[in-house]
Amino acid sequence: MTMVASPGYGFTLRLRSINQPGMVGLITSTIGQMGGDIGAIDITSAEKKSVTRDYTISARGVEHSRIIVDKIRKIEGVEVLNVSDRTFLIHLGGKITIENRVPLKTRDDLSMAYTPGVARVCEEIAKDKSKVYNLTIKRNTVAIVTDGSAVLGLGDIGPEASLPVMEGKCMLFKKFGGVNAFPIALATKDVDEIVDTVERIAPIFGGINLEDISSPRCFEVEEKLTERLDIPVFHDDQHGTAVVVVAAVTNALKVIGKDITEIKIVICGLGAAGISCGKLLMASGARFIIGVDSEGILYNGRDEGMNNVKGDFSAVTNASLEKGGLAEAMKGADLFIGVSGANIVTVDMLKSMNSDAVIMALANPTPEIDPHLAAPHVRIMATGRSDFPNQVNNVLCFPGFFKGLLACHASEVNTEMKLAAARAIAAVVGRDEVSEDYIIPGVFDERVAPRVSEAVIRAAVKTGAARRVPKKTPREIKAE
Amino acid sequence: MTMVASPGYGFTLRLRSINQPGMVGLITSTIGQMGGDIGAIDITSAEKKSVTRDYTISARGVEHSRIIVDKIRKIEGVEVLNVSDRTFLIHLGGKITIENRVPLKTRDDLSMAYTPGVARVCEEIAKDKSKVYNLTIKRNTVAIVTDGSAVLGLGDIGPEASLPVMEGKCMLFKKFGGVNAFPIALATKDVDEIVDTVERIAPIFGGINLEDISSPRCFEVEEKLTERLDIPVFHDDQHGTAVVVVAAVTNALKVIGKDITEIKIVICGLGAAGISCGKLLMASGARFIIGVDSEGILYNGRDEGMNNVKGDFSAVTNASLEKGGLAEAMKGADLFIGVSGANIVTVDMLKSMNSDAVIMALANPTPEIDPHLAAPHVRIMATGRSDFPNQVNNVLCFPGFFKGLLACHASEVNTEMKLAAARAIAAVVGRDEVSEDYIIPGVFDERVAPRVSEAVIRAAVKTGAARRVPKKTPREIKAE
Repeated sequence: MTMVASPGYGFTLRLRSINQPGMVGLITSTIGQMGGDIGAIDITSAEKKSVTRDYTISARGVEHSRIIVDKIRKIEGVEVLNVSDRTFLIHLGGKITIENRVPLKTRDDLSMAYTPGVARVCEEIAKDKSKVYNLTIKRNTVAIVTDGSAVLGLGDIGPEASLPVMEGKCMLFKKFGGVNAFPIALATKDVDEIVDTVERIAPIFGGINLEDISSPRCFEVEEKLTERLDIPVFHDDQHGTAVVVVAAVTNALKVIGKDITEIKIVICGLGAAGISCGKLLMASGARFIIGVDSEGILYNGRDEGMNNVKGDFSAVTNASLEKGGLAEAMKGADLFIGVSGANIVTVDMLKSMNSDAVIMALANPTPEIDPHLAAPHVRIMATGRSDFPNQVNNVLCFPGFFKGLLACHASEVNTEMKLAAARAIAAVVGRDEVSEDYIIPGVFDERVAPRVSEAVIRAAVKTGAARRVPKKTPREIKAE
Repeated sequence: MTMVASPGYGFTLRLRSINQPGMVGLITSTIGQMGGDIGAIDITSAEKKSVTRDYTISARGVEHSRIIVDKIRKIEGVEVLNVSDRTFLIHLGGKITIENRVPLKTRDDLSMAYTPGVARVCEEIAKDKSKVYNLTIKRNTVAIVTDGSAVLGLGDIGPEASLPVMEGKCMLFKKFGGVNAFPIALATKDVDEIVDTVERIAPIFGGINLEDISSPRCFEVEEKLTERLDIPVFHDDQHGTAVVVVAAVTNALKVIGKDITEIKIVICGLGAAGISCGKLLMASGARFIIGVDSEGILYNGRDEGMNNVKGDFSAVTNASLEKGGLAEAMKGADLFIGVSGANIVTVDMLKSMNSDAVIMALANPTPEIDPHLAAPHVRIMATGRSDFPNQVNNVLCFPGFFKGLLACHASEVNTEMKLAAARAIAAVVGRDEVSEDYIIPGVFDERVAPRVSEAVIRAAVKTGAARRVPKKTPREIKAE
């Protein structure tokens, strides 16, 4: 259950109440007393003795909505006609659609889009395979690939159950980047089978976005695919998070006036996101990073709960070989980055940090520490949530990032692109605007995606990863 | 090169000509004399001494269009400013697009379509996997799967070059059936790799349409996938063709007053389409079928050019063990079905057929015999082309067929469905309308897909292949 009412747990209640003054007031105050948030009230029909109204309500969770409905049922003179879940209504039949870009109304249309005209287009690509980028949707299409093994906080729920998230991701790609994305949820969790499958379906795609594949398999999948494919492969849980975190850190350091090379950073959670944040922070200059996982502080030579990736990470972080738990790690730290679980950070830990502490508690939906609890003890607080300032959300990165990759036919994703994207996101918040409550742009800020895209293209050209230099800048393309 | 000018070989010619009477007449008559077909003439700019016009022209082929342009260049007072290929313009950037079905404008939208609301939808499917049909695009989405090994008449051009055809197929699915289709062009031709790959990507799809996979591998791929998947698998080159051929045969026999159990049928070409036509004709009652391929007549015990599928086919056809070539097979035949190559049937062969002969010369773009040549010697002539009567085109089948399969969550494709679809297509042409020139509905006849869909649903329910009985009939769904 989240802390505040959210439309994600919204429902519409159709109530018939006797037609007498004060009924609506009684109903709305009951809902309000229960912590429900009323969005709208619409009359659907009115008779002489009764009126039927739809109440659109946000709740804190499923259980909360049930409690509200039960309470309403007990009001005399009120009848609950229907309870409909707004979120489920939105998902009915799926959230994306495949449509035709050109008309197909006449025989002439058919003979150009399909046979016999299409044969010439095929022959052109057969002669020169690179033309597939101009003459098919490969130019602007990405696969969202998952095995459903690490979906949101729900864990290994399988490919079918992961699809609503993947379709949602496709929506974000279109809305913010103008990129076609198609969900591919795989019925296998074997690394080699995943890699083989993606390699075989790659011809139609201009890029691969890996999503919600559990760690450490996700690292191996990404590495092998990057090696085998000539299109860019991006694991959003790793790199998307890292790019946005580095952007937020960049602006946070401007506010507190510290230098990235000097600060002590604690990263809690050493899965896909944590390791990638650490690496990108180091690429940005960070030198003092302590990783912490369920076994405590990571150090070179630790035996418990290790894998290859943590082994590599332990060799380049924690040079002073600190040991102990999260409480020990937090002592004297300037920046905490949490990509772990709910409520694992205490107020005492915050008190042990350096002055002007920065907390990025990104566990979702419940952060590593309640922002209200943390507030008195830290200078800057960021979360993954939309109901607090400084929302660190991957959607600031991936739509523009892929837009850029596709525009320049990038052959790979590299660190320069990620750093460039992070700088571009940070720079959307002007130097005179940046403050404790505004270190990162909002998710609906339309300046973000085109700037990220341009930054990625420039980095790709500079590093030789671009196979095409777009004539138009992405901002011009965006404006079309 | 096709026999008549087609917009599939259309181009737009921008010409600047001196402003004097008779110039347009000179230009258009030159184009006409060369066999070009003028679709439209539009003035783009007019100065005092000259006028610039766009001439939209259909040609017979690429070479033909070059010859026309060269001739125009030689006209005094005319300058060729630009030649643009209309077909290529349509294909630029691909022909389909993925769009959002629900809005994503506010934080509320985000929290319902994506996190946190989406988690509940995922959990619902995790609890009951069958809900994936209601809550994702699986309900209405099909994969168009190819390996690019037998594309149109172009042969093995590979996955990338096949994509313009697959995207075109997706367009037809949407336009005629309202079905989402996504192109999957595989970078492998190995049967087991194809099967494994499709099985792994199946969770998002409600059905699989196999396309342009060369024979005999296509049979094995279809058989294995049908065995392994719980969603329907349909190889359009086989079954789509067979369904439409049986529909056409049904009506042709009404015209000539013969009975399917009595007629001698020659099938020329024993690849995917030929074998499937033969089987479905037998399921409709046909008893006397002779198969012919490049090795001549197929008979039980033949050694040359055999494979498993032809072996099975030889055991159930040609009971009288006829031998020889196509000429021998045609003697006394009532019906010829060609799914082979250009111009292999002679007038002498036609003369050797039974009275009221029916010819379905389906090789594309050039039929087994020129319809003009055949006309005096046959009662009914059908081709795969749009520029002659009786076009046998798969698009009459697959959009409605899949619409039906998806609507009832069919677990498989079976013969009863195919026969029902064939009867439904045939019945669109009323008993009093059916004639030598109208044995099959036109591709733009909007009655076809809903009727095919209903017929498939009814057959699925009857045979136990339906996992859901739709509340609405497809015609009602279509009307929405």
